[in-house]
Amino acid sequence: MTPDELAKACADAMWADDHASRALGMRIVDVAPGRATVAMPVRPDMVNGHGTAHGGFAFAVADSAFAFACNSRNVASVAYHCDITYLAPAAAGDELVAVAEERSLVGRTGTYDVSVHAGGRVVAEFLGTSRSVGGTVL
Amino acid sequence: MTPDELAKACADAMWADDHASRALGMRIVDVAPGRATVAMPVRPDMVNGHGTAHGGFAFAVADSAFAFACNSRNVASVAYHCDITYLAPAAAGDELVAVAEERSLVGRTGTYDVSVHAGGRVVAEFLGTSRSVGGTVL
Amino acid sequence: MTPDELAKACADAMWADDHASRALGMRIVDVAPGRATVAMPVRPDMVNGHGTAHGGFAFAVADSAFAFACNSRNVASVAYHCDITYLAPAAAGDELVAVAEERSLVGRTGTYDVSVHAGGRVVAEFLGTSRSVGGTVL
Amino acid sequence: MTPDELAKACADAMWADDHASRALGMRIVDVAPGRATVAMPVRPDMVNGHGTAHGGFAFAVADSAFAFACNSRNVASVAYHCDITYLAPAAAGDELVAVAEERSLVGRTGTYDVSVHAGGRVVAEFLGTSRSVGGTVL
Repeated sequence: MTPDELAKACADAMWADDHASRALGMRIVDVAPGRATVAMPVRPDMVNGHGTAHGGFAFAVADSAFAFACNSRNVASVAYHCDITYLAPAAAGDELVAVAEERSLVGRTGTYDVSVHAGGRVVAEFLGTSRSVGGTVL
Repeated sequence: MTPDELAKACADAMWADDHASRALGMRIVDVAPGRATVAMPVRPDMVNGHGTAHGGFAFAVADSAFAFACNSRNVASVAYHCDITYLAPAAAGDELVAVAEERSLVGRTGTYDVSVHAGGRVVAEFLGTSRSVGGTVL
Repeated sequence: MTPDELAKACADAMWADDHASRALGMRIVDVAPGRATVAMPVRPDMVNGHGTAHGGFAFAVADSAFAFACNSRNVASVAYHCDITYLAPAAAGDELVAVAEERSLVGRTGTYDVSVHAGGRVVAEFLGTSRSVGGTVL
Repeated sequence: MTPDELAKACADAMWADDHASRALGMRIVDVAPGRATVAMPVRPDMVNGHGTAHGGFAFAVADSAFAFACNSRNVASVAYHCDITYLAPAAAGDELVAVAEERSLVGRTGTYDVSVHAGGRVVAEFLGTSRSVGGTVL
C-alpha cells in the first residue's frame, strides 16, 4: 500500500467501529498521511440555549478529524489534550468542515491543528495533542 | 429571588431551549452561583473506534456544566476558549458527572474548572473561559 | 519526615539548582503536598512594548509554582502542557503571587490550577499538566 | 509603505520599548504580515532544577514571536490566551528559534501557531490567541 492508501485503510477501519461519529452525521471528506477532513451538518437537535450549535459539536467534528489524522500512519494513537477557541457561531443548517493537519510528531507525541469552517467563515481553531498507545490500527 | 434561586431559574430557562444537552441524555444535578453539576450516561452510540466514549461527549458534558455555571448570575455569557486533558477512558454504561466551579470573574471574562468523573475515577479535567455578551439570561 | 517536611525538602533541593527562578527574583512563600506559592516582583526590565509585564514572566512565576507543587511528593515530574489566560495586566513594581493547587493525580499525570495575583487582582489563570519521569527529587 | 515594510516598522517600534525581550537576549530574525521569527540563546541562568531550559523561557520566545506577528499590521493587539506543549528539552547553549504564523483573524481575535525549534528538533508547540485593543502600533 502507498502511504495514502494506508491512511484511507486506517480511516475505514476506525470508521467501521465509530458509532459516535456516524450517529452525529459526520462523513470523511479526505484523509492522507497526517491529514484528514471531516464534515458534519448542524442538525436542529445540536442547537443550544443561545440558538447556536452547542460547542460540543464543533469540538466533536474537530476531534474526529484529529483522530483520523493522528492514526493515519497505522500507529494506534489517542487524544491526550485538546484546546479550542471559538471565533464565530454556527447555526442549524450550516455544514461544519474540520481540516486537521499534523504540525509535529516527536517520539510518541503528535500535535495537530484543526480549523473548523462553516460557509466561508472560520468557526473555531483547535489544537490536539496525541499519544501513541502501542499497537497498530489495522 | 435569592442567588441560589436565580441560578436555578437561569438554568431552567437555558435548559428549555437546550435541545443538544437533552438529546444527549444529560440532566442537571445541581446549580448554584458560579457552580453547576451535570450528569450524562454513556450510551452505546457514544463509543468510538477505540471502544471508549468519544472525547467529544466528555467534552460536551463538561461544556454544559460550564455553560450553566457561567450563566448562573443572570449575565448572558458564552464559551470563548476551552481546554481539556483526558486522564482515563470512560466506557458505555458509565455515568459521566461534570462538576463546574468558578475560579475567577474579572470584567467580562470568567474562568471555570470542570472535573469529569465516572465512578470514582477522574476522566478529564477541563478549563473554560467565558465572555459576557450583553443582556441577561432571564 | 512528614508529608509537609518532604514537600519542603523537595522544594529546597530543586531551588538549589534552579538558576532561572532565582535570577528572576522569585521566592518560595509556601509549599505543601500538592501545593506551592511563589512570589516575584515585576522589575523594570520585565516590561514589554505595551508598558506591562511581558506575558512570559507571569507565565514563569506560574510555571515555577506548578513545578514545586507537582514535585512535592518526591516523584520527579516535568511540565508537559500549560495553558494560560490573561485577565488583567501587571506593571513594574507589582508583586506577582502564584498559588498552585493540585486538582487531580491519575497514574503518571497530574493537573494543577495556578492563579496569579497582583495586589487584589487576578492577573492570570494557568492550568498545568505534569508527567512523572521516573526517579525521585531527593 | 508596503505591508512588509509596515510589519518591520511595527516590530521596530515595539522592540524599542521591549526591555524584556532584549534583556533575555532575543533578536528578531524576520517579520512579515502575520508572521515573525525570533531567536534566543539559552543562557546558563535560564536552566532549571532538571538541567534543562526553564519552560518559561521557551514560552517567552514563543510569546515574543506571537506578539510581533499579531501586531504586524499596525493594529495594537495583546495576548489573551496561550497554550504550550513541551515536546523535547532544550539545554544551555542551544539557540531557541520561534516561528509564528497567523492561522485566522476574525473580528478582533487572531490565532497564531508558534513552533519553537532548537537545532533540528521541535522543542515546543504554542498556540496564541490575540485581541485587538483599539489604536495602532505606530
